[in-house]
Amino acid sequence: MTTDIHFMTARELTQHMRNKMLSAREVLAAHMTQIERVNPRVNAIVTLTPEIAAKRAAEADAAIMRGETLGPLHGLPIAHKDLQDTAGIRTTYGSPIYADHVPVSDTLTIERIKRAGAVTLGKTNVPEFGAGSQTFNPVFGPTLNPYDVSKTCGGSSGGAAVALACGMLPIADGSDMGGSLRNPASFCNVVGFRPSPGRVPSWPQGMGWFTLSVDGPMARTVGDAALLLSALAGPDDRSPISINEAGARFAQPLDRDFKHTCIAWLGDMGGVAFAPQVRAVIDAQRKTFGALDCRIDDAEPAHMGELDAIFKVLRAWSFLAGRGEDVRKHRARVKDTVIWNVEQGQALTGADVSQAEIKHTELFQRVRVFMQQYEFMVLPTVQAPPFDVTQPYVTEINGQRMNTYIDWMRSCYYISTLGNPAISVPAGFTADGLPVGVQIVGRHQDDWGVLQLAHAFEQATQIGLRRPPVAG
Amino acid sequence: MTTDIHFMTARELTQHMRNKMLSAREVLAAHMTQIERVNPRVNAIVTLTPEIAAKRAAEADAAIMRGETLGPLHGLPIAHKDLQDTAGIRTTYGSPIYADHVPVSDTLTIERIKRAGAVTLGKTNVPEFGAGSQTFNPVFGPTLNPYDVSKTCGGSSGGAAVALACGMLPIADGSDMGGSLRNPASFCNVVGFRPSPGRVPSWPQGMGWFTLSVDGPMARTVGDAALLLSALAGPDDRSPISINEAGARFAQPLDRDFKHTCIAWLGDMGGVAFAPQVRAVIDAQRKTFGALDCRIDDAEPAHMGELDAIFKVLRAWSFLAGRGEDVRKHRARVKDTVIWNVEQGQALTGADVSQAEIKHTELFQRVRVFMQQYEFMVLPTVQAPPFDVTQPYVTEINGQRMNTYIDWMRSCYYISTLGNPAISVPAGFTADGLPVGVQIVGRHQDDWGVLQLAHAFEQATQIGLRRPPVAG
Repeated sequence: MTTDIHFMTARELTQHMRNKMLSAREVLAAHMTQIERVNPRVNAIVTLTPEIAAKRAAEADAAIMRGETLGPLHGLPIAHKDLQDTAGIRTTYGSPIYADHVPVSDTLTIERIKRAGAVTLGKTNVPEFGAGSQTFNPVFGPTLNPYDVSKTCGGSSGGAAVALACGMLPIADGSDMGGSLRNPASFCNVVGFRPSPGRVPSWPQGMGWFTLSVDGPMARTVGDAALLLSALAGPDDRSPISINEAGARFAQPLDRDFKHTCIAWLGDMGGVAFAPQVRAVIDAQRKTFGALDCRIDDAEPAHMGELDAIFKVLRAWSFLAGRGEDVRKHRARVKDTVIWNVEQGQALTGADVSQAEIKHTELFQRVRVFMQQYEFMVLPTVQAPPFDVTQPYVTEINGQRMNTYIDWMRSCYYISTLGNPAISVPAGFTADGLPVGVQIVGRHQDDWGVLQLAHAFEQATQIGLRRPPVAG
Repeated sequence: MTTDIHFMTARELTQHMRNKMLSAREVLAAHMTQIERVNPRVNAIVTLTPEIAAKRAAEADAAIMRGETLGPLHGLPIAHKDLQDTAGIRTTYGSPIYADHVPVSDTLTIERIKRAGAVTLGKTNVPEFGAGSQTFNPVFGPTLNPYDVSKTCGGSSGGAAVALACGMLPIADGSDMGGSLRNPASFCNVVGFRPSPGRVPSWPQGMGWFTLSVDGPMARTVGDAALLLSALAGPDDRSPISINEAGARFAQPLDRDFKHTCIAWLGDMGGVAFAPQVRAVIDAQRKTFGALDCRIDDAEPAHMGELDAIFKVLRAWSFLAGRGEDVRKHRARVKDTVIWNVEQGQALTGADVSQAEIKHTELFQRVRVFMQQYEFMVLPTVQAPPFDVTQPYVTEINGQRMNTYIDWMRSCYYISTLGNPAISVPAGFTADGLPVGVQIVGRHQDDWGVLQLAHAFEQATQIGLRRPPVAG
């Protein structure tokens, strides 16, 4: 059994540990071996904490031996996104300004992961300040796509996605403003789930009521993402927007009959360009949803193109709030795209922001009404396949020029703006063998429905089982 | 029994109707008689819909006779705040621009009140666009304080408060950005409860995620306010911030033992002036909380004075969003204070708003931590007693000059800004016989606790039973 430990699911691992078939130390050792073997080739885990991990694993084993009540993640190895503050563990945000930053306290997400019994073994790589869906930064360099190391792994939860794909971790936390849980999942053939705002309460947070940035789970399977979500979700009074519903339900079996479920098969959402090789993979999977007896229509809410300006205003506004100080104090040590976003924020009037919020509300209502008819919307996660790792972002898709470093992320950030829960699940490969994910979007706060449909799709396709060559 | 119908509580009335001791038509008739008798002297109900009410009451009686399942407000007369759109019933917002406005659909709050079985008999007066805690407007004129008709009833839910105080209605809906449910309750010796944002979901709403404006219940007793809340509260997917908890719990008995409950007795919150005669009434009630065996400390969170600027930025920002168009198109027909608020909004940068949101979050966190020690905060609802109805707002309190038309509303709007649930309950009278309310503030989303403590206070003091002279 030992040879396969690092590619077992988290659900299998927890069961084996509970049954004492495997110890947490053995599970940790298997993953550490895989990290030593594979990480140098992809640069996914950028800070390693073997002593902390060994201590936590030993404690986990002792707790099992004492017959204690165990948390849902008991004994599972994990590494945290380097945007999450971890007490006593270096947290750089991918910025040279914070290259030596060691936080004194954990974020709420880290707190919950620890309390659920997981074994922290390090930090996963991110783009500088998490900006842009390409994981490179001046502190640690780029993270490479394990299916083709000349390509990017996407981002911003890029290190997490690669570590999962390569069997270095069974579960990983990520976060998502414009697609950061879904884009790297799509690029690396793993699962990334963007929950509803407030489902995973965030703390600390500069603007506590801001709904565009959320934390969420990543894994190789939908079931494992749901398991991690069961630990991350649930109310906490440190976040004023936290949803008042316990997380435990997400650990329940995901099976559901989708007969007659209505799905809207989205088109170009008012002008979003898709690379033909991505579109082809996704459209080929329409039959899978059909085989689940879903009813599938080509349909989409009107005026989705308006989401572009709304997102850009709110993103720029939040960059000013979050990074304005860093740019003012350390301009020379901040990447151009972040400076650009902050300056966009500085140029905003209050009216720009309120008009964006009014439009935001209109779109929310329009999609709500649309989804009275359709329980889910399905679309490609990313507009383009993984691209050259030396390229900072995509500049053209299917003949359409991308004018900013985020334009190519529309298929993700339109959905972020709506606030609906959305997942990326492995859906196939381009002719070049590069992964393509399908994005499933659910109704307002129906995180559970999204996970269930994603699980059914995964069961039917099993595409996530195809391992990256580099993982051996 | 008939003589007292219009001063019975809503809970008594529903019970009598369910027991067939009273018909909904009799209940309606008693209140209509009181309205005819008293309303001309106070101008609380500004639109009367006797035909609609008669039809609804007859239907309510028929439903009782058929043994149908009845909603929590079945057969109870109500009038709606004239800021709430009512399908087919004139809704002016107190503005000459909308003097002839007849909406085609109900707001969500009105929808819920109707579905709960209440009998709409008209609309209650408001300040122009609900701006300022003084109920006067060019469409209907001022609403007078029933304890002294030379004084204001406060606002903006002024018509509602006066109608309740005078026995014209047993329950009334209101809304509150800067104190509009609490201020008129305090000035008119009734109960006004500002729920947590999202507790009573609002729809339609220009900025769906905005948390400062909330709808809520008013009544003569805490129990009746809670009963109305049971119909108003509960999730609805039209509001992205709605709290996922059914409303029915608010109809349960409110009794609770408050032994050893820790209460912070707030001081001047970093410089808020209180009129001595208000402070005297509230401080005299400290013993009532003591008699409930609460532990009471003089304490308050640090830096509460920062709430002033935060509120003013967010208020101006929302006025621009909500009323900017009216000012642009009909400037000559909008009152100066609203124009001023809109222009304040126009002057804001995006950074002003994000800085306010960052400070807002800091204060939220500071008060959250403070309230780990104190389950409740208690303070006067309003800084001054009811003032001359010819005066648009208070210009000085205890020697401190008020620089804007809202400065005197700080004791309410500081609490609005925090987002904590807060109630105003009758606490006594000044030497001139003018009502003074006490404000009880609960922990984040602990609406139930606030209602329970308010109920205990009300039971101990019975001050709400003192009727206004004008009501006869």
